Amino acid sequence: MNFKNRDLITLNDYTTEEIKSILEKAREVEKYEKTREKRTILQGFVLATLFFEPSTRTRLSFESAMQKLGGSVIGFAGPEATSIAKGESLMDTVRTVANYADIIVLRHPRMGAARAAAEAIDIPVINAGDGSGEHPTQTLLDLYTILKEKQKISGLNIGLLGDLKYGRTVHSLSVALGRFKNNLYLISPESLKMPRETIRDLRETGIEVHETQNLSEVLPELDVLYVTRIQKERFPDLEEYNKVKDAYKVNNALLERGKENLIVMHPLPRVGEIAYEVDNTKYAVYFRQVKNGVIIRMTLLGLILGVFE
Amino acid sequence: MNFKNRDLITLNDYTTEEIKSILEKAREVEKYEKTREKRTILQGFVLATLFFEPSTRTRLSFESAMQKLGGSVIGFAGPEATSIAKGESLMDTVRTVANYADIIVLRHPRMGAARAAAEAIDIPVINAGDGSGEHPTQTLLDLYTILKEKQKISGLNIGLLGDLKYGRTVHSLSVALGRFKNNLYLISPESLKMPRETIRDLRETGIEVHETQNLSEVLPELDVLYVTRIQKERFPDLEEYNKVKDAYKVNNALLERGKENLIVMHPLPRVGEIAYEVDNTKYAVYFRQVKNGVIIRMTLLGLILGVFE
Amino acid sequence: MNFKNRDLITLNDYTTEEIKSILEKAREVEKYEKTREKRTILQGFVLATLFFEPSTRTRLSFESAMQKLGGSVIGFAGPEATSIAKGESLMDTVRTVANYADIIVLRHPRMGAARAAAEAIDIPVINAGDGSGEHPTQTLLDLYTILKEKQKISGLNIGLLGDLKYGRTVHSLSVALGRFKNNLYLISPESLKMPRETIRDLRETGIEVHETQNLSEVLPELDVLYVTRIQKERFPDLEEYNKVKDAYKVNNALLERGKENLIVMHPLPRVGEIAYEVDNTKYAVYFRQVKNGVIIRMTLLGLILGVFE
Repeated sequence: MNFKNRDLITLNDYTTEEIKSILEKAREVEKYEKTREKRTILQGFVLATLFFEPSTRTRLSFESAMQKLGGSVIGFAGPEATSIAKGESLMDTVRTVANYADIIVLRHPRMGAARAAAEAIDIPVINAGDGSGEHPTQTLLDLYTILKEKQKISGLNIGLLGDLKYGRTVHSLSVALGRFKNNLYLISPESLKMPRETIRDLRETGIEVHETQNLSEVLPELDVLYVTRIQKERFPDLEEYNKVKDAYKVNNALLERGKENLIVMHPLPRVGEIAYEVDNTKYAVYFRQVKNGVIIRMTLLGLILGVFE
Repeated sequence: MNFKNRDLITLNDYTTEEIKSILEKAREVEKYEKTREKRTILQGFVLATLFFEPSTRTRLSFESAMQKLGGSVIGFAGPEATSIAKGESLMDTVRTVANYADIIVLRHPRMGAARAAAEAIDIPVINAGDGSGEHPTQTLLDLYTILKEKQKISGLNIGLLGDLKYGRTVHSLSVALGRFKNNLYLISPESLKMPRETIRDLRETGIEVHETQNLSEVLPELDVLYVTRIQKERFPDLEEYNKVKDAYKVNNALLERGKENLIVMHPLPRVGEIAYEVDNTKYAVYFRQVKNGVIIRMTLLGLILGVFE
Repeated sequence: MNFKNRDLITLNDYTTEEIKSILEKAREVEKYEKTREKRTILQGFVLATLFFEPSTRTRLSFESAMQKLGGSVIGFAGPEATSIAKGESLMDTVRTVANYADIIVLRHPRMGAARAAAEAIDIPVINAGDGSGEHPTQTLLDLYTILKEKQKISGLNIGLLGDLKYGRTVHSLSVALGRFKNNLYLISPESLKMPRETIRDLRETGIEVHETQNLSEVLPELDVLYVTRIQKERFPDLEEYNKVKDAYKVNNALLERGKENLIVMHPLPRVGEIAYEVDNTKYAVYFRQVKNGVIIRMTLLGLILGVFE
């Protein structure tokens, strides 16, 4: 299995064995991270973070990962991104930056941008989100979190809550969870249901897929509850939004009706979907998820730059 | 005396002995800095600079300090700060970033923000200014500058000039100078006098506190003249502002009436309070103050991250 | 020959022998760069990139160069630059930053800003563009590219195409090419011709200088075609702009009428002056130019910071 110089545009390009291998490697890296033993392994390597739209958390997570292994970072975000986007084609920008850096992390509002960039240059590209497309390192960190918390990533009952229609995170994640043979509970308002074809694809992998609008009803079945943001703008009228918002608010009273080992995940940022009171309970793993994101990105940077044996 | 993992929100949390110990350590660090001997001591450590309002000089000073010891930096400032401030609560932001970094330097417009952040997370927080609250590393660098220039930080006659009502710098500094038993000369226009209760507190420590509007009158008494900015917006009418501005302009003619060893300090940036002609005189120490700021921040980062024995 | 602590404001301050020596050193550095042997040579050194106007590519190129040698970077660009520019004089800003860094790279809209900054402080300053003034590292990377591609930098026929009136790049470059005894073909519309006095100065060095509006006519003579951007705003009316734009569009059909070894250069970004079809031909060296920019900047940082023998 060889990851050196490979792009990471979507997890669909990686076999299930390869994904498992990344998750196993992450376990090792997590140990380095604690000891700071390997903290110079990427010395002299330069990561370019090209963020054509803002995503401060993702950017900081990659920059932290690179630097914790001794590497350096250049890049742009915010208004500078806008001005560079105006001046020249994306392809010229990435072909230019490919001369400054050893690896590029790209965030771009247009679906397909990461793939196009990867094809234009010789250095590897990691997709950090391309419009309604993919965000594969988010999916990997979600899988890694489940593996660490549950000691397995198969045969679990996993609830996905919120906007399942537009939410990029949950589409990629549900496909990945399907590959690992988990059962899915899709919990969303009628107007934000997961697209038909995605569900059909999931069922074809042989897993159970339950759809419901009722969170309380399915909660007792779940090993994992994955909460995502519901955006007000998605709703035709405010009244419906308010109804949903209240019905899907995750709080301690609700969680106490769940399994003993239920865990609650969230890609963050949250804006009210999970009550603050949950933060200090055994259920809350969403801040540990953030930590796992750094570990996964350290692992990927090391694998792709070829510094791990 | 142990500084490892301690927050630095206000100097009021530190004993006078602890402050002295920091200043002594800074002397040592200043020697390393010259030799570059210790330039990898923070390798693998990550500092996050979270600047929710702009303060480019403070940000660059911390980033320089971290990197001169071999550490790395992530963070945000400017418009990115605005967008992150909108998306989620400050507490969620710092709890997220606490997973990316080993230490946080926080600048926030709201008084109390740094304390609240420090209480929410396990990694140490350094307050780089929270509204009308504190900016303790500025005070430490001021003390360190006086110590270096005067070989002592007690028993001096120190004039504080400018906006003593709203100026955050001078409040914290005057309290610290009081703890070290210096005499204070508070020089300000009537409308920008230091608050009554601050003066009362200072007098209770047993030091002399003189209030005046007349700079020339007290100048001959001073060992240190600490100049701060007077902002036009603070004045009811423009005429009064112009009068004060001229009366408090520090230039060579004025300084020649001072003591032989008088020094002039300023937290910078200045906008006309000190004439450029002063820059190359023996009185001017304000650019050395900037240098001392880096030394103090190197010292604090090293102490709090526990890399100094 | 000693480069330690020298400013680089304009190549006019450097002898032809010194320029040759920099280009030779760059050859060596290019070898290090591949092996990563010297990747810690600038450890503990801090570069400040002060960009008072945007130039993301130049900024990233310098930051990459510094970090590839193990150094660190602080600085500002974008809106932060605007706010710092308002608060205090440029001289105060650079005198402040001189206490944070070991070397400054300055980009400023005002001609003469870099020289003034260099004179105000003790640490070295590299000019990364000052209005209609100079951008010497661009000229050095252009010379280095010609040397690498042609194995010489003298006696070549070099065409400069585009806006020769306002284009800063071509003024500095043409002077440098003159010093190295190349013949120049100046190709531009009537309204954007190179200034009379620049041409006179060039001719006085003893080289041939041909002026023309007709690209196809002179193309067969050229060893190097250096293309620059023609900005719409420079033209009195849109019709004239469109005429020129089409006449000067560099594409494969045109290039096939050139010499076997003709190379096409461009400082980038391009906005349509060179057809994308040229990118994968033997003529195109403009992305290699970008790479050479990093090498030249690594070389200069190493020489000026005194880490090369």
